[in-house]
Amino acid sequence: MRVAFLGLGIMGQRMAANLVKAGHEVSVWNRTPKALEGARVGATPAETAQGAEVVWMCVTDTAAVEQVLFGPNGVNSVLTEGMVVVDSSTISPSSTVRFAKKVRARGADYVDAPVTGSKTAAGDGTLVFIVGASEERIAQLQPLFDAMGKTVVRVGDTGMGHAAKLAMNLQVALIYEGFAEGLTLATKLGVEPDRLIELIQTSIVRSGVVDYKAPFVLARDFTPHFPLRLMRKDIHLMLDAAKEVRVKLPVLETVEEIYEVAEEEGFGDLDFAATLELLEKWAGVEVKGAK
Amino acid sequence: MRVAFLGLGIMGQRMAANLVKAGHEVSVWNRTPKALEGARVGATPAETAQGAEVVWMCVTDTAAVEQVLFGPNGVNSVLTEGMVVVDSSTISPSSTVRFAKKVRARGADYVDAPVTGSKTAAGDGTLVFIVGASEERIAQLQPLFDAMGKTVVRVGDTGMGHAAKLAMNLQVALIYEGFAEGLTLATKLGVEPDRLIELIQTSIVRSGVVDYKAPFVLARDFTPHFPLRLMRKDIHLMLDAAKEVRVKLPVLETVEEIYEVAEEEGFGDLDFAATLELLEKWAGVEVKGAK
Repeated sequence: MRVAFLGLGIMGQRMAANLVKAGHEVSVWNRTPKALEGARVGATPAETAQGAEVVWMCVTDTAAVEQVLFGPNGVNSVLTEGMVVVDSSTISPSSTVRFAKKVRARGADYVDAPVTGSKTAAGDGTLVFIVGASEERIAQLQPLFDAMGKTVVRVGDTGMGHAAKLAMNLQVALIYEGFAEGLTLATKLGVEPDRLIELIQTSIVRSGVVDYKAPFVLARDFTPHFPLRLMRKDIHLMLDAAKEVRVKLPVLETVEEIYEVAEEEGFGDLDFAATLELLEKWAGVEVKGAK
Repeated sequence: MRVAFLGLGIMGQRMAANLVKAGHEVSVWNRTPKALEGARVGATPAETAQGAEVVWMCVTDTAAVEQVLFGPNGVNSVLTEGMVVVDSSTISPSSTVRFAKKVRARGADYVDAPVTGSKTAAGDGTLVFIVGASEERIAQLQPLFDAMGKTVVRVGDTGMGHAAKLAMNLQVALIYEGFAEGLTLATKLGVEPDRLIELIQTSIVRSGVVDYKAPFVLARDFTPHFPLRLMRKDIHLMLDAAKEVRVKLPVLETVEEIYEVAEEEGFGDLDFAATLELLEKWAGVEVKGAK
């Protein structure tokens, strides 16, 4: 298929490369110009999207999606009947519904397809796509999903992909904070961290989140895999969405406060796992490694 | 071995039955008199423990352990050199250290060995024991652990079993609240609950906690497997222990508030999964099933 890929960040560049590898005709654009082997580089979002069947976005936030679509030289100006816009960013569900309405007014369709998975999964083409779209539209996009991911979960219609993605990241944040609070308590009471982690791995509290983070925590390595400031951004999206539909999320609100303080204290560019160090600091735990 | 088993609640009766089944010579006692096939029934803790090699407790709380050991007709009066007292209740780590000191003054030893696992695991003899004791003492007790459990994880010395158990239940509570908040948000935004649960099961947020609870949540069945008021009791133990060692647990404090309100609103005898209904109520979600 002819695909315009907009946004060559950590995830986007790997996803676009997998589209090229699968033989699709790919044009790319990035805010700060970047090339991608085997792809044509466009000058603007509009020029890149011109003539494409599918326009795939993977950008920073809601404002960036709006800019790419409806800003100067935005995609909207070149949309034609039958084109499909797909958004793999993590953004606001209600803004998504608004963007979709404007895109559909031009005869194109709009799909939200955020992903779960690390940059490794993006590279390997084993992402999970969380999709808000009709079954029919998903079938049409299947060759592209196949090139970049291993699983497509349809969670509903437009906006539901982002809604479900936020609910997933909410759980990532809360599972990790549960681990961090449990570990801090147990450690201060005298339990060795590796004993507790061994125990976790025999039990019903075992999760991929903790399996993934535990070795880094034991090594006191907070190199960013998912930077704290990006998780904080997602937490703000969750709380904004919750406010819009009047849902009260008391635990998430508390986690947000922890992230606020963590960022103020200079942890923003570390992995979000570094929130543990804040708890340890509050508890006066002797930390063996370095921040 | 000659074992006195004190406390025939939901877990204790199944654990003691497995000791009988494995051929051990078992005497039992319960606060409200109860019989157990194949076991001698004692009149008091002291009388039941008299002459036993191991005294195993599985009672309600810290006060109950203290009463059974040091109250009138308590075990302490019959302790002799070489006896071992084991506690599989979930109680305060610091009280455990205090109890152990008094027991050791009589020449006996003290082991904390709380369990993870449901009543089914207690029945099947597949519990996980979280043990604070020396390797040597664990080896001595191995035939009894084998009769009741599938795994023994040594987490440290006396008191560490309870410390680690509290850290585990903390994670159970927080993982579930993460699921409940994520589900409430996604549902109010329009995602079908079973779609979100399907997504969870493909992802790194999958855990035994949610795998176990999700079908009951979808069926709106809050029959108590682990009653909310008992989880609340454990949360108090965690926060008490945290206070003793000056650890600040902001997320757990928020979860405690949710449990306080839930119990005030009459959810205490439901499963702790019913905290979801409180979030839904706050969010004005239409609930299809009944409380």
